[in-house]
Amino acid sequence: MDEFGIIARYFAPLAGAGGLGLTDDAAILPQRAGHDLVVTTDAIAEGVDFFGFDPAATIAQKALRVNLSDLAAKGAEPAHYLLNLSLPHTVTPDWLAGFAQGLAEDQQRFGITLLGGDTSATDGALAISVTAFGYVPQGGMIRRSGARAGDHVYVTGTIGDSGGGLAIFRREKHALTEEQRDFLIARYRVPQPPVTFAAPLRDIASASVDISDGLIADLGHIASASKLRIVVDGAHVPLSDPLRALWGDAVLLRAVAAGDDYQIAFTAAPGLTGPFTPIGHVAAGEGVSLMINGSEAAVSKPGYRHF
Amino acid sequence: MDEFGIIARYFAPLAGAGGLGLTDDAAILPQRAGHDLVVTTDAIAEGVDFFGFDPAATIAQKALRVNLSDLAAKGAEPAHYLLNLSLPHTVTPDWLAGFAQGLAEDQQRFGITLLGGDTSATDGALAISVTAFGYVPQGGMIRRSGARAGDHVYVTGTIGDSGGGLAIFRREKHALTEEQRDFLIARYRVPQPPVTFAAPLRDIASASVDISDGLIADLGHIASASKLRIVVDGAHVPLSDPLRALWGDAVLLRAVAAGDDYQIAFTAAPGLTGPFTPIGHVAAGEGVSLMINGSEAAVSKPGYRHF
Repeated sequence: MDEFGIIARYFAPLAGAGGLGLTDDAAILPQRAGHDLVVTTDAIAEGVDFFGFDPAATIAQKALRVNLSDLAAKGAEPAHYLLNLSLPHTVTPDWLAGFAQGLAEDQQRFGITLLGGDTSATDGALAISVTAFGYVPQGGMIRRSGARAGDHVYVTGTIGDSGGGLAIFRREKHALTEEQRDFLIARYRVPQPPVTFAAPLRDIASASVDISDGLIADLGHIASASKLRIVVDGAHVPLSDPLRALWGDAVLLRAVAAGDDYQIAFTAAPGLTGPFTPIGHVAAGEGVSLMINGSEAAVSKPGYRHF
Repeated sequence: MDEFGIIARYFAPLAGAGGLGLTDDAAILPQRAGHDLVVTTDAIAEGVDFFGFDPAATIAQKALRVNLSDLAAKGAEPAHYLLNLSLPHTVTPDWLAGFAQGLAEDQQRFGITLLGGDTSATDGALAISVTAFGYVPQGGMIRRSGARAGDHVYVTGTIGDSGGGLAIFRREKHALTEEQRDFLIARYRVPQPPVTFAAPLRDIASASVDISDGLIADLGHIASASKLRIVVDGAHVPLSDPLRALWGDAVLLRAVAAGDDYQIAFTAAPGLTGPFTPIGHVAAGEGVSLMINGSEAAVSKPGYRHF
């Protein structure tokens, strides 16, 4: 099947109104009155973000969700996406069908449609990048730069689970139950970005970031953009039981450097409660300090670096 | 240098207003009152669209221009772009500086700015994809589907030059002068999409496409979307002297199947004159016929296919 056949069979059924059935050179991005259109783009790479033996459906969903996570952290509700695919010649119709099915399920789940993209063949590894579009009420996008001294720091979900799943695939020795192992692998394969939290987040957050490079590294982005210091109380970082079982005493230092969480870290007024956990505060100064038992812990590798 | 260092040093200076200095997770796409926002995305691949020994600046410009070509064909004026880069570990600061310089020059030339993107490292080949945004007056995007029986078919520029340049790189034997060879190689390395023709095109075209897969293949997209037949008069297809010198008697069949032209093919009323050449007409039926000396020529491989 050539690229036009692949598009017609697997991807055209996923196209939304602006996508023109994927039969034109370009698509139209619908505008929403009184709203800003927010765009983000992220690629996932084989051997880092996914493995060739992962189900095609979860690879598709991870490619989408790492982008939905960015939109959620900015307070934007997702609406459309573009898909750039570089497919090895060995790809099968079954694989493509599974990939498209994974996208279809997430389109339904998150209320989004495909606008367009680009499909080509490669002699190398499978490469996937997604560009996602969402809307925020005009002027409402949450920046990294809005933190204020005295704010508290909060995170959604639990931290480090995806990194645990990756370690298992990389043959880290462990004594987990099957259920614990499957939990961590599922977190690695299919991130659970808090997409419905985007709207409430806009009402409370002074600054926000999605956790992709690692909790400490990403809080560093807020600290740097806001020209302030962030202090994290290690005892309060939310950790899952399976991750504690995997890493034992090292769990906290592993978790905060792991990356790939696709949860949201944000700063807001002190004392808030909701589907998030308070983990620290904002102060004058710079950088991120991780406090354990009252003293500052060194985080040797504060997050994932591509280079 | 890590990805943040690369972004800060080479790409942040290219960012426009909505790009927030490339220091946030997402960007804001400015809306323009009374206009539709048009989006397109295309990747370029090493060994097909460029070679590792090409100047970094021309690789950057080709990645951009293959997208500007799509916008121009749709009647859209370019405004912003996103850049997704997958960089081999061997990339040097000089290479990155040249790449950024190529982008900077084209931003100036075409009046566009960088909005954001994604940079990662790869063990494989350099991979570049660009997503470009442009504006058309509301409802004014030119589709592939609007051709009418009786319309004439026109193209901008000359056809097949880029394919000639590629053939030279692939060691096709030739007896060209240095000047002829350099002309064809330049057309391969740096497409010349007729960006300023977008606005006048909106006033005349009933259907339009950019020529990326090959003249016959891309006219096939108009024929198929418009449910009509396109007849091309081979004698009228505009061909450059260097390309005639390269291919001799085979020049026409080579040119119409070559692809990578990034010129515009469109349908419009008969008898128009301007910066374009009439090459055929639209009739009832389906498919594309290439007429040579009154009989239909077979085009064995009507255009570039990735698969």
